[in-house]
Amino acid sequence: MSDRRAVVLLSGGLDSATTLAIAVNEGFSCYCLSFDYGQRHRTEIEYARELADQLGAVEHRTAKLDIGTFGGSALTDKALEVPVVREGDESAPTDEIPLTYVPARNTVFLSYALGWAEVLGAYDIFIGVNAVDYSGYPDCRPEFVAAFESLANLATKAGVEGNKISIQTPLIKLRKEEIILRGISLGVDYSQTVSCYQLGTDGKACGVCDSCRIRKAGFANANLQDPTRYL
Amino acid sequence: MSDRRAVVLLSGGLDSATTLAIAVNEGFSCYCLSFDYGQRHRTEIEYARELADQLGAVEHRTAKLDIGTFGGSALTDKALEVPVVREGDESAPTDEIPLTYVPARNTVFLSYALGWAEVLGAYDIFIGVNAVDYSGYPDCRPEFVAAFESLANLATKAGVEGNKISIQTPLIKLRKEEIILRGISLGVDYSQTVSCYQLGTDGKACGVCDSCRIRKAGFANANLQDPTRYL
Repeated sequence: MSDRRAVVLLSGGLDSATTLAIAVNEGFSCYCLSFDYGQRHRTEIEYARELADQLGAVEHRTAKLDIGTFGGSALTDKALEVPVVREGDESAPTDEIPLTYVPARNTVFLSYALGWAEVLGAYDIFIGVNAVDYSGYPDCRPEFVAAFESLANLATKAGVEGNKISIQTPLIKLRKEEIILRGISLGVDYSQTVSCYQLGTDGKACGVCDSCRIRKAGFANANLQDPTRYL
Repeated sequence: MSDRRAVVLLSGGLDSATTLAIAVNEGFSCYCLSFDYGQRHRTEIEYARELADQLGAVEHRTAKLDIGTFGGSALTDKALEVPVVREGDESAPTDEIPLTYVPARNTVFLSYALGWAEVLGAYDIFIGVNAVDYSGYPDCRPEFVAAFESLANLATKAGVEGNKISIQTPLIKLRKEEIILRGISLGVDYSQTVSCYQLGTDGKACGVCDSCRIRKAGFANANLQDPTRYL
């Protein structure tokens, strides 16, 4: 096993599964971290556990988070409806920050990853953010990631002692189809990943939320069959 | 009530109590946030709730955190002993980062505060960090705070939309005795605050941990009677 340890944020979605496969392929011993933050469905955490196992991670942990209690997002606040685009409505996602944005989510996720990285003696943190086919979240942009990396090196014992902490974002400039093709070349089974914001209890994706639309288009553009089970 | 809302991190200790009093005095409507992160004693959360009430906060919430599960600190990991200095041992705290450091703690705390601030429409976050009489934690330094403020403005809807988020650290350059004198002028009752890292079940402070020593010296240097109940 490699001495180079990495913490990998793993949601159970397409992007983070690919990110884990890349980190393993680069020779890191991967410690995967998922969050139970009151998201509408928890199936993705079970998918994450399976993916960590299949893709050769050393360990998988799920941390419970209280951020859902602050409300403010359709993903955690049951009073808000997940925005969908019905068939025939060809309007693309707009530039506005959508209701599915969870306040400060990636900041909180990366902070936890940083804490675990310190304890593990890991200097690399992988996160599957993407600045191309994304949903307009401010905390998916390269400048956000760079700012977090600066912070990480000031915030920690490791940073202070001169061990540079890197926030690794191997997907940041890839289009969805490129992510999918990369993952397939590394053996990711995308039927075992979930993207839908409002997955049914039967495990079927809605097919109409932003996340489903972006995923569908990715498989179409890659000329691959989409293994997702849609409603 | 003021329209200027602030999130105030409130531990139940001397510094954060003073910080809350300052924020209230500056005219902010204060929303106080405490954390239950597996610290050795939870009395400080009860003190925090009381302090929020006494000092005129609008609301107090306690978020449960899972960071204790990563281990690595004497404050959350029961396998590690809190370092103490016994009477007769006059060695001062060293420059090394101590065992009581909780990995990435202030990063996680500020991330949560940021999430709540976004939901509340608050642009100010108060934290009672101090770079003078502190225990050598990397995440108490001004450069850490500045890096978090940069991050906050890139991470959030508010920041992206041009509402500058400020991380307010009114104590950062004050010595402990100055903090105490400021708090007393604003009506803080320090007998209702707790600093000890290993408070007894009877509510008595150990008097020998770093935090007790710094607190004791603060009252002595301010020529004030220390209202703390020591063992």
